[in-house]
This record gives sequence, structure tokens and C-alpha cells, in this order.
Amino acid sequence: MKIRVAIVGGTGYTGFELVALLQHHPRVQLTAITSQSYAGQSIAEVFPALRGVCSLVCESLDVESLSQQADFFFVALPHKTAMEVVAPLVRAGKRVVDLSADFRFRDAATYEQWYQEHTAKDLLAEAVYGLPELHTDEILSARLVANPGCYPSGVVLAAAPLVAAGVVELDSLIADCKSGVSGAGRAATLTTHFCEINDGFTAYKVGEHRHTPEIEQELSIVARRPLKVVFTPHLVPMSRGILTTLYASLAKDVANEDIGGLYRKEYGSAPFVRVLDGGHLPSTLHVRGTNYCDIGWRLEDRTGRIIVISAIDNLTRGASGQAICNMNLMCGFGEETGLQLRVWQP
Amino acid sequence: MKIRVAIVGGTGYTGFELVALLQHHPRVQLTAITSQSYAGQSIAEVFPALRGVCSLVCESLDVESLSQQADFFFVALPHKTAMEVVAPLVRAGKRVVDLSADFRFRDAATYEQWYQEHTAKDLLAEAVYGLPELHTDEILSARLVANPGCYPSGVVLAAAPLVAAGVVELDSLIADCKSGVSGAGRAATLTTHFCEINDGFTAYKVGEHRHTPEIEQELSIVARRPLKVVFTPHLVPMSRGILTTLYASLAKDVANEDIGGLYRKEYGSAPFVRVLDGGHLPSTLHVRGTNYCDIGWRLEDRTGRIIVISAIDNLTRGASGQAICNMNLMCGFGEETGLQLRVWQP
Amino acid sequence: MKIRVAIVGGTGYTGFELVALLQHHPRVQLTAITSQSYAGQSIAEVFPALRGVCSLVCESLDVESLSQQADFFFVALPHKTAMEVVAPLVRAGKRVVDLSADFRFRDAATYEQWYQEHTAKDLLAEAVYGLPELHTDEILSARLVANPGCYPSGVVLAAAPLVAAGVVELDSLIADCKSGVSGAGRAATLTTHFCEINDGFTAYKVGEHRHTPEIEQELSIVARRPLKVVFTPHLVPMSRGILTTLYASLAKDVANEDIGGLYRKEYGSAPFVRVLDGGHLPSTLHVRGTNYCDIGWRLEDRTGRIIVISAIDNLTRGASGQAICNMNLMCGFGEETGLQLRVWQP
Amino acid sequence: MKIRVAIVGGTGYTGFELVALLQHHPRVQLTAITSQSYAGQSIAEVFPALRGVCSLVCESLDVESLSQQADFFFVALPHKTAMEVVAPLVRAGKRVVDLSADFRFRDAATYEQWYQEHTAKDLLAEAVYGLPELHTDEILSARLVANPGCYPSGVVLAAAPLVAAGVVELDSLIADCKSGVSGAGRAATLTTHFCEINDGFTAYKVGEHRHTPEIEQELSIVARRPLKVVFTPHLVPMSRGILTTLYASLAKDVANEDIGGLYRKEYGSAPFVRVLDGGHLPSTLHVRGTNYCDIGWRLEDRTGRIIVISAIDNLTRGASGQAICNMNLMCGFGEETGLQLRVWQP
Repeated sequence: MKIRVAIVGGTGYTGFELVALLQHHPRVQLTAITSQSYAGQSIAEVFPALRGVCSLVCESLDVESLSQQADFFFVALPHKTAMEVVAPLVRAGKRVVDLSADFRFRDAATYEQWYQEHTAKDLLAEAVYGLPELHTDEILSARLVANPGCYPSGVVLAAAPLVAAGVVELDSLIADCKSGVSGAGRAATLTTHFCEINDGFTAYKVGEHRHTPEIEQELSIVARRPLKVVFTPHLVPMSRGILTTLYASLAKDVANEDIGGLYRKEYGSAPFVRVLDGGHLPSTLHVRGTNYCDIGWRLEDRTGRIIVISAIDNLTRGASGQAICNMNLMCGFGEETGLQLRVWQP
Repeated sequence: MKIRVAIVGGTGYTGFELVALLQHHPRVQLTAITSQSYAGQSIAEVFPALRGVCSLVCESLDVESLSQQADFFFVALPHKTAMEVVAPLVRAGKRVVDLSADFRFRDAATYEQWYQEHTAKDLLAEAVYGLPELHTDEILSARLVANPGCYPSGVVLAAAPLVAAGVVELDSLIADCKSGVSGAGRAATLTTHFCEINDGFTAYKVGEHRHTPEIEQELSIVARRPLKVVFTPHLVPMSRGILTTLYASLAKDVANEDIGGLYRKEYGSAPFVRVLDGGHLPSTLHVRGTNYCDIGWRLEDRTGRIIVISAIDNLTRGASGQAICNMNLMCGFGEETGLQLRVWQP
Repeated sequence: MKIRVAIVGGTGYTGFELVALLQHHPRVQLTAITSQSYAGQSIAEVFPALRGVCSLVCESLDVESLSQQADFFFVALPHKTAMEVVAPLVRAGKRVVDLSADFRFRDAATYEQWYQEHTAKDLLAEAVYGLPELHTDEILSARLVANPGCYPSGVVLAAAPLVAAGVVELDSLIADCKSGVSGAGRAATLTTHFCEINDGFTAYKVGEHRHTPEIEQELSIVARRPLKVVFTPHLVPMSRGILTTLYASLAKDVANEDIGGLYRKEYGSAPFVRVLDGGHLPSTLHVRGTNYCDIGWRLEDRTGRIIVISAIDNLTRGASGQAICNMNLMCGFGEETGLQLRVWQP
Repeated sequence: MKIRVAIVGGTGYTGFELVALLQHHPRVQLTAITSQSYAGQSIAEVFPALRGVCSLVCESLDVESLSQQADFFFVALPHKTAMEVVAPLVRAGKRVVDLSADFRFRDAATYEQWYQEHTAKDLLAEAVYGLPELHTDEILSARLVANPGCYPSGVVLAAAPLVAAGVVELDSLIADCKSGVSGAGRAATLTTHFCEINDGFTAYKVGEHRHTPEIEQELSIVARRPLKVVFTPHLVPMSRGILTTLYASLAKDVANEDIGGLYRKEYGSAPFVRVLDGGHLPSTLHVRGTNYCDIGWRLEDRTGRIIVISAIDNLTRGASGQAICNMNLMCGFGEETGLQLRVWQP
């Protein structure tokens, strides 16, 4: 049997990714897509790739009427706007995966320091941070899941087993991350103009990116004490993918096999993490279009450091694929349902 | 029930595409992959994207032993080498889709003029040219299907309805085609070096590309008289996709609606052709990773020309997706089985 | 001795290209840059590549005060806006190269049919179309030069010798052109978003691009009778460069040597056209960042066609480099002054 | 007056870059180019961009005859092969800039540990490491300059002022570097195949890249004690450019102005370093095709770290431009002669 699903904010890149993936989900009937900019237009006019695939027409956002149309909601709106929609939906008894930052923080003060005033604080306590490998049980029974940011997904999965095992110095973590341009969204800006991106490589928001507190929250939970992380995002001239290069100082003497053991213990039964053996290193190309997070590493005796590298697709594992995985858990479908996606090369 | 399928030559890009797509085909059990260069290696070592997805080990090619392992064969070898494998397989009663040029020509002389000596001419008569929209009935009962070249797939689908209806001058056809780099194969050459492709755009093999006689054969059949086509391939700095810009002089007074009618009549029930309305034009991005051929056009009264534009993914519709579609028809599966592929943007 | 030069509209891509190239022109002192959007900002803030290279501050546009600051003007404004600035400058006795379409047409009616009302028709008669190889003498004595469009530069140079010599059927010309994205300008639009361009290839404005009448005007002059050209522009995922693939039906029996002779006769002494021998074909990569137009061709006996291919850099030969070449001629500097630009690979 | 210059190994990307740049150097007459693979072919056949620009024919390498043809040599050969040519040239009284790693190390043991046996150890003492900002005086009087590796150029320039001033913990340095593909050379390999690079991002040789000891040598000299650096190279889908993201723990309390002061003190008079103010961050696009190294930084109080970012063009500042700068110093030409290169955007 299928559940009725709506996408609120379906004409950004994560919205599109949801539509494209949900077309092939055996337990989902997509019943509505809202869009502020394209209300009244067919989603296939907005995204011609969807011609003949999806015939829904974008609706303007009306929470009440929307509530009638679906039982499960993906909210892919910008933060702030998101909470204004999520809150009434949850209160109306709907289950929601919110792809914005609005419900990712356990502490409202952190949210308000990095974003703005929070207008639905009462829901923060019950909202679950939707990184399936870390919070499976809570997700299974959640009404509201806050889907992780794209960068935190790759960083936290790479770092958590090391932090949990105490093999690295907790305040030595540096995450140097590189993202494809779709992470910047679909809005037309000079920054995302082809000619400004092509053949160029830059860092941005160094020391001030809003995914920093999110990474710190999750790794602090794992560490069972507060920790800080240096996080530097970069923009790569490619459409999709995030590679994270994580640096940490070793706190103990460990061998390659030990590290492999830690990752396998943590992720051995997780269908969407691939732990690489034999010194293999991940590439964003190898996870393109999939929900996988590939993880490899190198111990560097010379300097007493470990370098861990993870690769994800920012739109799939870093957003919409993970959101669907969360829905699968929340609804009791198999975790992999609709997410056994074909791999790519090239 | 599943059939046992083997891929002969599985470590080029079309071989990879077959492996990746067949993982999700509900009627196929992939039993063997051969590779000259990688025999003995796991296919997931060759293509790390396949880690955890496919555990087969590449075998060296031995037709006899291979015959034991499968009932259906995809041969993704270079021409000439292909026929040496295809012929014994067919004679052993196996069904085969050959992705090389070796069995595409009805006239051995044409093959020998553009390629080299043909060593299995007896099979040319029974081999069917595997463009599903044009040769459905023959494919349904074929033992040996010659999968079309990537360029001919896009050109013939764009031109056939106009040629069939007699609305264009038969000797006015010019196909200006632009292909992504995967069309050049996976071999490491200076031509395909990133730095030689990136930021550059060129034509190649102008007036001498071997897909020319293939296009002419198929359109001559449609026209019921021999015709010639000017065909110019270009290399685009992108991985996948072919856009064809087809020019023809109008032989009659026609309106936009007439043209739309011709395309819809020809392809109305074809699941993998999307005829675009309202002057919309196709983009390779909109068919990326799918088996669709998108077709749009413009009538230019000023010059008495029609310009038809088609877009395909050269590895899917132009090779492996189409090959699987042919298998579906040959085996009595539904034409779309395993080919309802997710769409992309970006 | 140096002349004082101002750039009106210096913060688009052609404006930037002018600034960058003029820094190294031995006869030019750049005295002013205007910009509507960035008035008051240093040009090096707008384009960080210019840090330490150019210290000018963008001014808002005031024709009167601008007239005091320079003797020679490059106007790099959108059409319509351009003529409102060009006209008073010329009437004030200034010499001007206008990079817009406003003064490219000898016939105001053609302009008004494809663009809008013309408000400075009196200057059309004296304006010279600035394709140096075709109009050298007129440019030498011009006060106002209309710099050609990017596409017409590549198409007309490729076609003119054949048209002049009468070796091709005049109404058989088809120009299939492929441009890098900088041709679409620097404005932030969804069309030029990296993720909409990368890995995609499309045609646009088929049958309706405004460079069509410009190509037809120039080739009609060469042919000494009106002719029509089919012109189809495409967008390539690269920043710079235009490749033109020109098709024509042969009107006579000609050999390769004859064609080479025609091109060499026409362009033998032109410093910025390279006629390729021995069947070599141009690539946009080989002219990147230079003022060259490379031209190669193939005769196709099979179909009675000639295929001519030309490559230019759309921002240099297709805009700002050609504009500087026109200034060189107008001012009596050597044609190549400041334009002996380094070549690239990669 | 011009000096006679030869390029040994002129058909790789750094060789090409030397040829392209030296065409416009007012004090250089390029008299010979050698090439193992292309001996007997015109350099313009190898690199069509050079048609009409350079008419030299590649010669096979014969040190004796080469000695007759030039007074100054750029050796752009792979390491090991390089020293076999450099040694006899220097002994014959020629001045040489060697672009390989063969003479970069003061300690032969370090070279032999990371590369192989050194066969011209006697020249190591007199060879000067050619980073102009750090070793100006020695370069001025050198006969043999070892041109720095591409990565070390960007890393050492970013780190040296901080290390010299003692504001960072010496063993905290982490250099996360991202390079365009031309850094991998022009050889046709699967790694550099367009389809393997495009849309992908990876790290490579993590913990084992041979530029590591080079970075450590130079920064140890600056620090006046041995130090270790973590260095991780990545491959970016672009042709040119290296961005370095350097992390260090602060050893003292410093303000932004202090850091700016340190960089300006060190590089204030250096024509090819641009120290960015006001929190601006460099991009590889802004140094494309130039000899600039752009440097920006952020202090992160939260974590007690400084993040310094530098951008260079790997073929110009990271190889051939810097080599020409070294020649300028060695020959008493002005440091900037022939290197006032146009800037790019896009």
C-alpha cells in the first residue's frame, strides 16, 4: 500500500531530487508539490526532464488544504519559512521531514545565534536529527525529522567512529570540505554563473559557515563532551558531490586494522555507508546519484595524524535521498526502499 | 523468473553502463563479465562505484565456457573482435545483442568499404538493426540484434518521420551532431585527456565518420530509395549526451501542427521518445541517464528549412539502455522493464 | 605617445576584456571606466583579477564629463542604451568603437525589424562595420565603427571567400554555431547557472537569433546580391570560444587546393586569420585568449558539399580584441599593436 | 640585446607554457626546443595554438650540439632524466633553470629517500631553490636554479611569514591543496581521461606525495629548526590552478592587522605576491595565466586557528612563469620582464 506524500517547495534542486526519486518509490504516491515561484505551472514545465514522468501541477502553499492531500510531508523551503509550515503540519498530526536547518538544533540558543529567532521552540525537543546511522531508534518513532545539512552528513559520518572510540584528540578536528555547485541552490546569482565557477576554485564563508554548529552538536553528542571543529567549505566546478578531508591528531597508538575495525563496527550493518579497504580513497564520482557515503583513511605516522576522506552526493545523501531514507524508517518501510539507485561512471 | 545474462567486454564505458543498469533489472541475473584487460579482477575494483553493488570477477574470454554460463549475451567489444565472438554464440543457439558495428549493415560491401573484411557474412541476413521504434517486429523474433551506433540513434529518430512522410528533400539532410566524451571510449588517449577537452570544442572525422553509412542505410530504408546524408560529429566538454541538429529543405508547404502530427503518429506509443510541443527544444541534460530521445523542431519560413533537434544520452539510449530495450523485446519482457530510470537536473 | 581612452560599460565580460587587454597596449592610457551597477567601486573590487593591475574607480555615466576625459571611446553597453551614448560622443568629435548592435546595419529598417526603433539613424551611413579583413579601408578613416557580433565574426570570415568566388550556391548556406557561455553576458540568470549549463548541450533561439540579419547583410555585400543564411546557435559548457560549422552546396567543381587558394588570397596578409592546411581543423582551444580566427575545411564529394569550420574566442576576436584592432586601424597604430597575445594549451 | 635560450623537453604542458610565454619576452631569442616524442616535428604541429607564432622544429636531445645553440637553458624533463642533462650543461658553463625535482634538495639523502639515487650530488651545494621571494640574492648569482614544485610554491609562500614570525605552532601546519589537472602532465592516462575527472573530486597520494619533503625543507629553513607538515593533494575538474588551504594553531594572541602586517612586510616589494585585505579570499580564477600568488586569511578565535588561503596558476607561478622569473633574476633583467601577463575573467 502507498502513502500519500507532498513536497513543500518542490522547485529548488532538492525539491527536484525528491520528485525524481519518489517517482520510483514503490510505497509512495506523490500527491502535491508546492512552489512559490511556479504555482500553476506543471512541474514538467519547470524541469523538462520530468516530461512524461510526473504530471503534477505546482500549487501555491496553503497549509490547510495541503493537509488534506497528504499524510507525509517533505519540506524543502529555506530556513525560517520552513518552521512556519512545519509547525502547523506536525500539530495537525502529520509526519514531516524538514530539509531546512530549523529543527536541527537541540538548543534553541545555538540556532538563534547562527540563524535568527526561532518561532516553534516547543518542537525542538521532539525533533530528531535525521542522520540514520547515528539516530536510528529515535527516527523510527519520530513525527518530525530534521534532515541534516549536506556538509554535516559527510563530516559527521567520517568523524563519529573515531570520536566515539577516543582515538583522536577531540579539539584537533579540521574538516576541509569541497562541494559541487548545486549545494548553493538554484537561485540565479553571480556566484553561481557558469563563467564565475568554471575553471575556478575557491573557499567561502571560512570560519563562519552555518553548518559549523551542526557538526559540533552531533560530534559533541558522540564525544559526550563539547568540542569545536574547524570547518572550511570550498566550491568545486562540478554540479554534485561533497568530498570531506578530515584531519585529526591521534590520541593513541593505532594501526590501520584498528581503524578499519572501528568503522566496520559502527557501520557494518548500515546499507548506505561503504567502508573502503586497502588504502582506497573515495571519489565523489563513485557515489554520484546514490545515497552512499564512502569512507577511506590514511594514518600518517610521520606527523601523528589521521586523514579521513568521505564522499557523498550532496543532493542525494546530503539532502533528498537521506530524507527519503528517514521517511522509510519513520513509516516502517525497509531502509533501502526506493533508494537502490544505479551507480555512475562516468 | 530471471534469465542468465553475460556481458562480453564489460570494462569499457558501455560495459559499465550495462552492469550498472542490469543490477536493477527484475528479469536478469548477471552471471558473467569478461574483460581482456582486467581478467581476474573484481568488477568493483575496476569501477569503485560498483562496490557493494556487484561482486562478479572479470573473466577472460572463452566462448565455450561462457556458453555454459548464460543464455543471453551482450557483446560490448570493438568491431572485428565482436564478430569473432558473436558468430559462435549465435551458432550455439544463444541470443545476442551486439553493440559493435559488425552486424549493423544489410550489405556486407558497405561494411567492408568503411570497416574491414567481414568474417561472418552468413549472419548479416538474420541480424536485425536494433532501433526499437523502427524495427519492433523483427526485434521481437530476432536471435541477433545489432545495436545501433550512438550518433545514428539520435539522427535516425529525428529524421525518419519527415523522410517517411516525404515532407523534406531527400538529399538535403545535414546532421550536425555534438557528443560528450564518453562516446570516444575509456581508452587513455591524448585526445580524451581532460586538459585537451576542457574549454575546447572541435569537429572531428568530418566527412569520414563510420556512422555515416549506418545513418544512410536506415534512412534509405525509410525513404524507400537510396539517399545521402552529410554528417559532422563534434566533441563537447561534457561526459555524456548527444545533441543532433538536423537540417532539411522542405519539399512541401507544412505547418507546425503537421510536423507535430507526423512525430506523434510515428512515436505516439513509443515509451522512449518524447515529442516536444510548443517550440520547446531538447537538451542533453534533460535525457541524462535515461533511455529517452527528446525531439523538438522549428520551421523556418524565411529559408524553407526545417531544423529538428534531438537529444539522447549516448551511453544509455545510444548504447546500453537501448541494448537492454532490445533484450526486453527479444525475451518478451515489457519494453520498459528495468529502464524506468530516474531523471536528472542537475 | 598615448591616446586617452575610456570604456563606457566596463563591468560586463566584454568590458572586463577591454580593461585587461588595454593594460598592455603601448599606445593607450585608460582614463575612465563607467558602470551603472558599480559606480564608485574600484574596478579591482569588481574583478579581483585586476588587483594591482588597474586602479581606476568606476564612474557613473555622464557623457559631458566623460568627453573631457578621453579622445577615444569603447562603448560596451546593451543595444538601445548604446546609441544614446554613441551619438553625442560622435557629434562631439570623438572617435568611437561601439560593441553593441546599434550601428551594425546599413539599413535602419532591418535594425528596427529585429531590434527596436533607431534614434540615431543619421549616423548609420557613416558607421563602418568593423570586420577588419572585409572593411579595412573604411575603418582606417572611420569616426564610428560598429564592432561585429560574436557569431557573425566567425561565420562571415569562414564564408566570405567562398561567396566572393562564387564556388558555393548562395542560398545553401547553413551556419551551425556553438558558443561558450560568456557570450550570454555576465547577468545572473537561471540559464547561465553552472548547474544548468554543466554537462548539458542545447540549441537556443533557433531561427530567430538577432545575429542572423547581420550575417546576411555582410555576406550579401560580398555576394553582390541578397542572400539568406540558416543560423543556429548552441550553448557549450565552456567559458569562451565559438566554433562555426558552415555547410554549403558546391556550385562548381573545385579541388582542395582551389579552396586553400581562395582563403589564402583573401586572408594572406591578414595577421589575425590562420588558414589551416592539410585537412587540419580548428579548435576553440587553439585560439583561446587571442584575436585569431582559425579556418579549416573539408570537401565532401559524396554529397557535393563543402564544410568549413572556423574558431574564434568570442570575447577577444568576437568582441574586445576586434574592437582594439579597429581602434588600431582608426588611430594609425599597427594593426597588431597590443594584440600579440599569448596562446594557450591547456 | 637578447640571449639565446633553449628548452629541453618542450612538448609537455610546462614546456608549452615556456614556449608560449617566451615568444613575448623582449630579452629572449628562443633557438631550440628538444622533444623525445616529437623530434623532427614542428612545435606548431604538436601544439596547433602555436601556428604562426613559433616556427621551431623539435630536435632530439644532444647535449653537445645543444650547447652550441644557446647560453641559457630551461630543462623541463622528468626527474632523473633531468639531472643527466643539467649536469653536463652546467659543467659546460651554461646557466640552467631545472624544472624537475632533481636539484631542489640541499640534502641528497632526502632526495634519495623520496625519489632515487642522485648522480650529480656535487651540484646540489650550488643549486639554488628558485622561490624568488625567499632566495632572491642567491638566485641573482646562481648558475643552476632548481625551480620549485607547483604545490610547494603555493604552500611555502602562504606559510613562510607566519613561520618566520613565530606566530604559529610549528608542528601544527596542515596544507590541504587542490590542483587543476594539468599538474598531472600531458601523458595520456586513465586518471586524466576527461570522463574520469569531470564531475569528480578526489584526494590522491595522501601522506606520500613527493612535494612533502620540499615543503618541509623550505619551511624548516624559515623556522630555523626542522618541522613537519601534513600535505594532502586533491584533483579538481579544471585545467589550471592550485588553491592551498593552510591550517595552523596560533602560538600567540594576534589580530588581523598583525597578520596583514607580517605578509606585507615579507612581500611588500614582491611584484608577484598580492596580499588581500579586508577578509577577501583568493580564487584560482583570479590568478589564471599569471605569475601572481594571491594570499588571504582568516583568524578563527573560536578554535585558536589561522586559515591561510593562497592561489596560483600551477603552470605559470607553479612552473614556467616562475622559471622565467628566475631567469630574469639570473640574467639581470627586471624581475617582471615578459611576465606582465594579462589577467582573466572569465
